[in-house]
Amino acid sequence: MSESAARDERHKARMQRKKALIDEKIAQAQDEYGLLLVHSGNGKGKSSSAFGMVARALGHGIKVGVVQFIKGAASTGEEAFFRRFPEEVSYHVMGEGFTWETQDRQRDIDKAGEAWAVARQLLNDPQIGLMVLDELNIALKHGYLELDAVLADIEARPLLQHVVVTGRGALPGMIEAADTVTEMSLVKHAFKAGVKAQKGIEF
Amino acid sequence: MSESAARDERHKARMQRKKALIDEKIAQAQDEYGLLLVHSGNGKGKSSSAFGMVARALGHGIKVGVVQFIKGAASTGEEAFFRRFPEEVSYHVMGEGFTWETQDRQRDIDKAGEAWAVARQLLNDPQIGLMVLDELNIALKHGYLELDAVLADIEARPLLQHVVVTGRGALPGMIEAADTVTEMSLVKHAFKAGVKAQKGIEF
Repeated sequence: MSESAARDERHKARMQRKKALIDEKIAQAQDEYGLLLVHSGNGKGKSSSAFGMVARALGHGIKVGVVQFIKGAASTGEEAFFRRFPEEVSYHVMGEGFTWETQDRQRDIDKAGEAWAVARQLLNDPQIGLMVLDELNIALKHGYLELDAVLADIEARPLLQHVVVTGRGALPGMIEAADTVTEMSLVKHAFKAGVKAQKGIEF
Repeated sequence: MSESAARDERHKARMQRKKALIDEKIAQAQDEYGLLLVHSGNGKGKSSSAFGMVARALGHGIKVGVVQFIKGAASTGEEAFFRRFPEEVSYHVMGEGFTWETQDRQRDIDKAGEAWAVARQLLNDPQIGLMVLDELNIALKHGYLELDAVLADIEARPLLQHVVVTGRGALPGMIEAADTVTEMSLVKHAFKAGVKAQKGIEF
């Protein structure tokens, strides 16, 4: 069976599984399958919650893939930490040097495409039980990646693989496709302007 | 200087620092001090976001204390994972056998008091840079701990120590005391009834 046929098979199996669940409205189904979780909103905790899930997964012996679509200026604590476990976490920071909506849009699209190629490979790997697509929503919002192609790759993943997508401004199609969507809202942020970003908290 | 005098001093210094920030409305203050963050709401990600911060802190070489006030039936992935680093994370799961609002309220109060004694010790330790008080809001909501005493201990912590408090139903006084409050809301939870809790995602 060709790779694409295998992907189609998996997609079909996933969709059938979902449809069966909806149709039968089974109250206490024991089925297990990989969820698509989306963390959006303007509050804190979208990415850190995904990284908490990474810790949780590692505690259960589940292998993890991480692709960060937006590279900040500072190297992050989560990167430094999870790179300690190269056998358990496949960690990729992409998107360095995005020019955003400015100088060279084609270059940004190319960079995002490279990042997605890495993500796609991990989404295809049945050894990976949890896949974090950090700030993917941002790349989608800017139109650097096509939502339909991204969702097709996500849907075609192995049946038991969980995927967490983070970033503010999740597109409606992403929310539609998700199993669980959590909105992180800022209720209070004292001294927002007066306190600089704190190591270990903000990055 | 006695321990309680030292705590009073630190509390005073913290309050003065906060007051100065508010009063002067410094736009770009470079001051650094430990924040009190509260994660509340009915959505997912309250605890996992705190555990993501633990990973982030460890990546920066910051030592961490964790006290979980509510012990679930299953042992959690985050506990299994972070216990790998006993030199870096002081991890305590308390609250086993709470009877909740039922049989023996005094026993629950005693248990919560024991958990708080452990938390208080870590809150007093200047080596700890990040302190996670997981599900503390639940213990407060049930009246197992007194908010005023809890907040006094939190305020008296070392100046640079960050504290994250999780749990739904944060009391108004906790929100008042916090520097940052994030509300995690559930936007969508497909198959809520039909899919069992997933290892690596829910626990």
